[in-house]
Amino acid sequence: MEQLTPSPRIRKSPFYNATVRDGVTDFTVYNKMLMPTSFGDPKAEYERLIKGVAMWDVAAERQVQISGPDAHRLAQYLSSRDISNMVSGHAKYIAMCDHEGHILNDPILMKLDENQYWFSIADSDMLLWCRAVAFERGFDAMVTEPDVSPLAIQGPLADDLTADILGEWVRSLRYFWFKETQLDDIPVVVCRSGWSKQGGFELFLQDGSKADKLYELIKSAGQKYGIGPGAPNHVERVESGLLSWGGDTAPESNPFEAGMAKYVDTDTDVDYVGKAALRRIAATGSERLFTGLILEGSATSEWPLPERAPIYFEGEQVGTMSAVVHSHRLGQTIALAQIKRSIVVERMPVEIISPTGMQSAEIHPLPFI
Amino acid sequence: MEQLTPSPRIRKSPFYNATVRDGVTDFTVYNKMLMPTSFGDPKAEYERLIKGVAMWDVAAERQVQISGPDAHRLAQYLSSRDISNMVSGHAKYIAMCDHEGHILNDPILMKLDENQYWFSIADSDMLLWCRAVAFERGFDAMVTEPDVSPLAIQGPLADDLTADILGEWVRSLRYFWFKETQLDDIPVVVCRSGWSKQGGFELFLQDGSKADKLYELIKSAGQKYGIGPGAPNHVERVESGLLSWGGDTAPESNPFEAGMAKYVDTDTDVDYVGKAALRRIAATGSERLFTGLILEGSATSEWPLPERAPIYFEGEQVGTMSAVVHSHRLGQTIALAQIKRSIVVERMPVEIISPTGMQSAEIHPLPFI
Repeated sequence: MEQLTPSPRIRKSPFYNATVRDGVTDFTVYNKMLMPTSFGDPKAEYERLIKGVAMWDVAAERQVQISGPDAHRLAQYLSSRDISNMVSGHAKYIAMCDHEGHILNDPILMKLDENQYWFSIADSDMLLWCRAVAFERGFDAMVTEPDVSPLAIQGPLADDLTADILGEWVRSLRYFWFKETQLDDIPVVVCRSGWSKQGGFELFLQDGSKADKLYELIKSAGQKYGIGPGAPNHVERVESGLLSWGGDTAPESNPFEAGMAKYVDTDTDVDYVGKAALRRIAATGSERLFTGLILEGSATSEWPLPERAPIYFEGEQVGTMSAVVHSHRLGQTIALAQIKRSIVVERMPVEIISPTGMQSAEIHPLPFI
Repeated sequence: MEQLTPSPRIRKSPFYNATVRDGVTDFTVYNKMLMPTSFGDPKAEYERLIKGVAMWDVAAERQVQISGPDAHRLAQYLSSRDISNMVSGHAKYIAMCDHEGHILNDPILMKLDENQYWFSIADSDMLLWCRAVAFERGFDAMVTEPDVSPLAIQGPLADDLTADILGEWVRSLRYFWFKETQLDDIPVVVCRSGWSKQGGFELFLQDGSKADKLYELIKSAGQKYGIGPGAPNHVERVESGLLSWGGDTAPESNPFEAGMAKYVDTDTDVDYVGKAALRRIAATGSERLFTGLILEGSATSEWPLPERAPIYFEGEQVGTMSAVVHSHRLGQTIALAQIKRSIVVERMPVEIISPTGMQSAEIHPLPFI
C-alpha cells in the first residue's frame, strides 16, 4: 500500500465526505478522482454484495456527454458497435478504439435522447479523445463533462431497496435500460447496471451538491436490508470475469483480446474509428485472448496485484496475469489473464511467476460463476 | 493522507525499486504512474534542493513522441506557440490548448530532429489528444509513448555532479538545450531543465531496464556533494511560482490565466489548435490571472491542500487558492491562486477560507523569489 499525497490535481468525489463518515480506508485514483476501494472489511463487503445489498461511490466513472445536432453521428463514429437501433433510455456496453483498433476505453453508452448521449467511462480521459475527433471532423456537437456522479446499489436485495426508494416500477426496468427521475428534490438517472454480476442499479446523480443527501437517504432506507458501504469488488469481478480496462488490458490490446468480440460490429455499414483495423484483426483472429485461470495451490499473499505477472508455456512467455484472488464461493485460486490464442483454445497448462513463486495454472473460460 | 490500493492500472516508474530502497514514503498518481512526493523528511529535501543537490524520480513526466514526415507540422499544430525557429537540441515551454483555448497541458516540447519531437507532459493524457488530431487531420506522423523516463538532478551543485558523471561539456549546455549521450552503456538525453528554479538537469533515460543502474550511478557519484532523494518540491515550486497544471488550473482555464501569456503567440502566421479563441481572449484580456498571495498569520496546518479553496473580496468569490506553504526562505505564508483580473491588477486585499479559518491575504507578483 502506498500513501497518497493530497492534491487539487486529484479530485474528490461528491460522495467523499459521506464515505469518510462511513469509514473508507483505501482508495484508488480513477479518472483523476479518488474512488473508494475498501472500508476495511473485505469479507463483509463481499458477503453484502453476494447475499444482501451494498452501496458504492463510483462517481469516478465520469460521463463524457455528447450533445447537439450531430450527437448521434459522433457517438456512432466513436463506438466500435452499431448503435443505429438504440432508442432513448437504452444503454450499451461498447469499445472505443483508436484508428489502429487498440481499445481506448470500454464505457457504457447511454442514449438520453436523439441529441444527447453519455459515455460512462473507464479510467482514461476520453473527454480529450472525443473533443479532438469532434472538432477535427467538424461535427456539430458539444463534448463536455456534466455534473453527473453515479452511486451504485448492488446485490440481490438491490431491487427491494430501490423499489422502496423510487417505487415499484423500477422492478420492471430491464437490464441496461434507464429512466430520469427525482428522489425528493434530487435529480437522478436510474439505470439497471453496475460493475458486478449480482444485480442492481446505478443512480446517476445530476447535482453534486446533493450527494450527501442522496447517500444518507439510501443508507437509511437500506438499514432494513443490512446495507453497508463497499466498492467495485475485486474478488467478485474476477469470479464474474469483468474487464478492468488498463488493468487487464495493455495499451496495444484490441477489443478481441479484452473479451469484447461480441460487442464489436465489423460487418456493419456504419463507419467508426478503427473499423478497417478491427475488420483485419477479426479476419485473422487476435493474437491473445482474455481468459480465466485456475491456479494450483493457494492464492498469492499479495493482493491485489501491483502489476501484471508474466505467464509461461514451456519456458516461453505467452501472456500476462492481471488479477488473482481466492474465490470464496469456488474455494479456488482464480485469475484473469491475456494469453496467446492457441494456448487458450487448446487449454494448455501454463506457469506463472507469482509474488509467491512459480505456480501451475489451467485455462478456464469466463465467467467462473 | 489516503491509502492507495495497488493496481496494474497504476504503473510503476522504472525507478520505483530504487526509490523504495531510498525510503520513499509518499506518492502521487501522475499520468497513471506512481510518482514519489516525499522521502519522509520535507525539511532536509528542501535544504538539499536549495543548497546542495537532489535527485528526483520524475518518470511520470511521460513523453508523447511525434515522428514521421509531418512531425514538425503536427507538433506546431498542437502548440499555442510559434515553433518555426526551433532547432534540433532545443526545448520550449508551451501550452497545448483545445479549440476553445482551454489549456490541456503545459509540456516542454523537445525537438530531437526534423522528424522527431517529444512533448514532455504534465498530468493529462495528451497521447489520446495528439493521436486523434493526427489521424483525423491526416498528418503523416506516428504518435507514441517511447520508453523514456526522466530522472532530475536539481540544486546549485547539480552542475558539478553532472560534469563529474558526463563530462565538463555539460556546464556549457544552455537552459532548455539538450543532447543525446551515453552514461556507460545507458542511453540518455541530458537537458538543462527541471521543475525547480534551483538549476540542474533532467536525464531522459531511454531504456527503462537500466533505471536501477542509472539511479545508483548518480547516487554514488553524488555522495561527495551530499546528494539525497527528493521530489518536485512543493515549497520551492510555490516560492518560484511554477505552475502545476490541473492543480492550479481548472478545466476551463486558458493559458493567460495560467501565467503563460508570454509563451502564447497569437500574432503569428502559423496555424494551431485554439488560435482563434486565444486571439479573442488576448484582445479582451482573460477573466482571471495566476498570481501569488501573502497570507496574514501562519500557514495552514493542512499541507498540501487537498482541493482548491475559495477566495473572497467583499463577500464575493473572486478566485481560488491552489497551494499554500510556509516559505522557509521568506519566513512568510505564501500561496498560489487564480483570481479575477481587476483584483490582481489593483492589488486589492482578499480573504480565504483556509482549512484553519478565514485569513486575509495580499496579492504578490510571481515568482516570490
